[in-house]
Amino acid sequence: MAETLKRRYRAYLDCLNRQAWDELDRHVSTDVHHNGQPLGVDGYRDMLLADFEAIPDLRFEAERIVCDPPHVAARLLFRCTPRGEFLGLPVNGRTVSFGENAFYEFADGRISAVWSVIDKAAIEAQL
Amino acid sequence: MAETLKRRYRAYLDCLNRQAWDELDRHVSTDVHHNGQPLGVDGYRDMLLADFEAIPDLRFEAERIVCDPPHVAARLLFRCTPRGEFLGLPVNGRTVSFGENAFYEFADGRISAVWSVIDKAAIEAQL
Repeated sequence: MAETLKRRYRAYLDCLNRQAWDELDRHVSTDVHHNGQPLGVDGYRDMLLADFEAIPDLRFEAERIVCDPPHVAARLLFRCTPRGEFLGLPVNGRTVSFGENAFYEFADGRISAVWSVIDKAAIEAQL
Repeated sequence: MAETLKRRYRAYLDCLNRQAWDELDRHVSTDVHHNGQPLGVDGYRDMLLADFEAIPDLRFEAERIVCDPPHVAARLLFRCTPRGEFLGLPVNGRTVSFGENAFYEFADGRISAVWSVIDKAAIEAQL
């Protein structure tokens, strides 16, 4: 069961990396919450679209996946080039590397809630 | 086995909250790494002593523990009152609430590596 959930989580990341937005609702619940905000799958898609618009070379890579059904925790590592400001920081086309530590709750095989922290201090240290 | 590891992790948090520094090496490996830095248990203790010095009401509370031996991921929630600067932010005695998403690797029953991200953006939003 942990392996099934891990596979599902990897399929979700693959969906993001292919920017296959018409498949997102296979991976994300209709009423998904993100950091306490009830975004819903449409708001979640809008957030990701804005992320890819701001960071054209964005790519989701999990360095570590910790799986304890119905929960997944993942450490994501990014190396990417935000065009302008990112998290309020003047990145302006520099390539930066940083981690994101994220927790996911699954319900009926889809992500129903996310609690995510991006390592902003690591980005600041690179500017 | 997951339950044993979860119990071990809770015992580690309890050790921190009691500031029982003479017990720390029961929970943390001699050669522990923290965010890629080889702190060792002495450096790790020094880091925690500095944290409690800077934040006298610091208390470690796990909202969520995801356990997949030998890995633990925990979402910690803090509500505390840093005296001066914290993460470079002028908190100066205000009470702030924030999360920390942390991954731990265990070896021989003790924490051998930690990858942690504190939600600095959440603190900034409260200042």
